[in-house]
Parts: sequence; C-alpha cells; structure tokens
Amino acid sequence: MTGWVKIAGLGPGAEDLVTPQVHEALTEATDVVGYIPYVARVAERPGLTLHPSDNRVEIDRSRHALEMAAQGKRVVVVSSGDPGVFAMAAAVFEAVEAGPDTWRDLEIEVLPGITAMLAASARAGAPLGHDFCAINLSDNLKPWDLIEKRLRLAAEGDFAMAFYNPRSKSRPQGFERTLDILKEACGDNRPVIFARAVSTPNEEIRVVPLQDTAPDMADMRTMVIVGSSRTRIIARDGAPIIYTPRSTPQ
Amino acid sequence: MTGWVKIAGLGPGAEDLVTPQVHEALTEATDVVGYIPYVARVAERPGLTLHPSDNRVEIDRSRHALEMAAQGKRVVVVSSGDPGVFAMAAAVFEAVEAGPDTWRDLEIEVLPGITAMLAASARAGAPLGHDFCAINLSDNLKPWDLIEKRLRLAAEGDFAMAFYNPRSKSRPQGFERTLDILKEACGDNRPVIFARAVSTPNEEIRVVPLQDTAPDMADMRTMVIVGSSRTRIIARDGAPIIYTPRSTPQ
Repeated sequence: MTGWVKIAGLGPGAEDLVTPQVHEALTEATDVVGYIPYVARVAERPGLTLHPSDNRVEIDRSRHALEMAAQGKRVVVVSSGDPGVFAMAAAVFEAVEAGPDTWRDLEIEVLPGITAMLAASARAGAPLGHDFCAINLSDNLKPWDLIEKRLRLAAEGDFAMAFYNPRSKSRPQGFERTLDILKEACGDNRPVIFARAVSTPNEEIRVVPLQDTAPDMADMRTMVIVGSSRTRIIARDGAPIIYTPRSTPQ
Repeated sequence: MTGWVKIAGLGPGAEDLVTPQVHEALTEATDVVGYIPYVARVAERPGLTLHPSDNRVEIDRSRHALEMAAQGKRVVVVSSGDPGVFAMAAAVFEAVEAGPDTWRDLEIEVLPGITAMLAASARAGAPLGHDFCAINLSDNLKPWDLIEKRLRLAAEGDFAMAFYNPRSKSRPQGFERTLDILKEACGDNRPVIFARAVSTPNEEIRVVPLQDTAPDMADMRTMVIVGSSRTRIIARDGAPIIYTPRSTPQ
C-alpha cells in the first residue's frame, strides 16, 4: 500500500463550507491527525484511527503524520480554515525539510479550504474587496517589532488588513498595541469588523469605528478585519454592509 | 415570493472545490448572472435562466441581479474563486449603495469560495504560510502609482505577495515594471510561483528565481506568488515544495 499525507482545510466551522475534495480524502484515509477540536469534526468509522493532539505540538504532529505515511498509511492532517494560511501546511513542510530524505519522496498534497478571513469578509459584505494584507498577530514565533513594522507599512500603503490570532490570555498586550498603532497611523474612523466563530451557531459579527475599538473585543476565536481608508458602510435595517470599492480615483 | 441575491464563489475551476453551500444556492436559484465562462460552469435545468454577460460590465450585471431580486427572483451572481477577493461582491455592493433605497432591504448574501491564491499556494506547497499581501495588478480602476507604492511597502515589510490579474494584452507594461521593482527592492533570488489555470486540466505551475523572472511568464489566467526573504525550497524528484516557515527568528 502506498501511503500519503493530505493536509486538508476544514473551513471555518460549517459543514456546508467543507469542499468535496476534503470529504473524499477523509473517506480514503486510514488516519487523521490534528488539534483536538478539529479532529472532533471528523466522523468516526471502522478503519479510521483518529489522533487528536494538543495545541503547540505542530511539529510533533507533522512528524507523526509523515512517519505513518512512510509506513503506508493514508493520513489526513486536518486544519481549520485553509491549511496554507497560518495553519498546518507550513508545519508539515518544516518537518519534511528537517526530516529524513525519504520523506521528500512521499506523496504530500495540500487541500485548500475556506480561510477564516474570507468567511468573515463574506458575512460582513466585502471588506477585502480591494488590496489587503493578512497578518498573524501572535508573537509566539516572531518578534513583536516585526509585527509592528508590518502594521505601520500596511497602514501607510492603505491596505485593508485581516488579523489572525489577535489575542490570547498569555499575550493580552499585543492587540492593545495593535489598536493603538492603527488609531494613530490611520487617523480616521474606518470600520473594524470583529467576527467570532464565523459560520458556527455561536457566530457574532460586530462592526466598530476604529477610534472606538477596545482590546477586549477580540479573543483567539475572533477574526479582525480593518478596512482601508476607502472602505464604505451601507446602513440599513439590520446589520450594515461593509465593503471596499474596487476602484481608487486618480 | 421573496427574492434574494447570493454572490457565490465557484472556486478556481475544479468541481470538487465548489462548496456544498454554493451548490445549494444554485439548486434554489431562478436566475444566474455572471461573466460568460463562469456562467458556463453552471448546469442548465428547467426553471433556471442563465444570463451570461461580458467582462467589464460588472455594475450593469449587478444592477440586473438586484432588479430581478426586487421582482422576487432568486438570483445567484457567480464569481470564480472567492467573490470577496477582486470579484463580484464589491461590485454588487457598489450598485446597492448607488441604487434605490429599497435595494438595501433585499436579502443579499456572500457565499465564500476557494480563491485563486490559496488554490495556487496549495499546489506549490505553502508559500503564503506566513504574513502576506494580496494585490490586484490591474490599473484599470486605480492609479499605477498606488500599485507601485504598495509593492515597495510590501517588499519593505518582507511580506509574501500574491498578485491577481498580473498582465493583459491591453496593459503589458505593468507586470514588467512590477518585476523590475521587486528585483530591485528584494535584492535576492527568492522563488516566484507562476500558477496558471489552477485545478483545471490546463494547470501549469512554474517556480522561477526572482532574478530570472520575465514578464511573458504570466497572462490574465496566471496567479503569481512571490515568496518572502524566508521562503524555502525543498528540492526533490518532481516539482519542488515551496513554503514560508511559520517562524521568524528574533
């Protein structure tokens, strides 16, 4: 039997946002590895072994997947959202590069998914309808100074911005500094979208003018989207529509 | 009958990358509008009217969709990729904002899809595995100076970059200038991915060191991804794996 690893994006949470390609891979798999809450989304069946693991063990989990594939197993590594965006794909390739040469010859495929920023954007309107940046606000794996530099450059370029991992209990200060930097650098009241648990029954979407934002509006399950200076709000009964026009005047 | 508009992402081309949510909307629709090649991807059936239209008439098409919904039709506006990324969602909201007040009360929903940069990234490895920018290189709707400014800032911030609409017959110079700017600003030989017709039978993926790139490597069907200074190449038999590690050392 020829083993393989497929790194699959389960999307933001709703079952109807999982692609048929990912369903097919799960049907063919002998083993599924991933962070506990994502593995919990995979249906149990005879012949399939689930290997849930804790957060922050991405490299160990990747090695485990690659070892099993080398033994002939068909392994799906599950990520939420898209595996290529601040998720498991880069971790698996880091393990491949550092591992035995034979791992390079394994069949390894990335199966894209609906990433959180695009699910959140869809629920709010089209805030990422023009040029934008995606930034991971966690400084677990990079220096804070680099995050700050990127925030200032993104503001200077008038990009819309999407923030992953804005805030956690272990690092509450970063998001506060992020908002301070943006309030100063943008100097206007553009809309900020706080989208929590998008596409799940607990979904909450909140739109707040930049100058009124506060750090406790986000947690680790929140996707934060900051409009550009051109982003528009269409007021109406019910939730407003937030979108960034396609054009910028000369 | 209550009409609605759903702006749906068909993904990059492969049928198994279309979400069940989008399939469901197409099943319920009375009318489908969109650019000719995207409408051609929708199966004909009794009770469904297809309204294909040409490129560059996005606002006319949006008005048509909104008018039909106001008359009680269930209208799906189809986009390739994700409708919120350089696609139809912003166009529909521009039409809503400029249109009669009654259009604001219509049920309008955006259904996310697999956007081209994430499909391309998945095929190459995980080049967008760390902070990145998405930039539309077409200067049809924005001044070229703004594109150039954003390119320089993105390079200064060491973002990976994904370029939509890199080149067309009517504006061949822009992509040439883009490559010149990046060669100068990045000053290294980081990998550039040219991903054409991703997930279709005509798919072509080409990885070229930045200093060896040439303008004719891209056309309008090409997604271009430029790595950051940290992006890695894993050589192996067959196509190399390109990925950007999750961490940046202090």
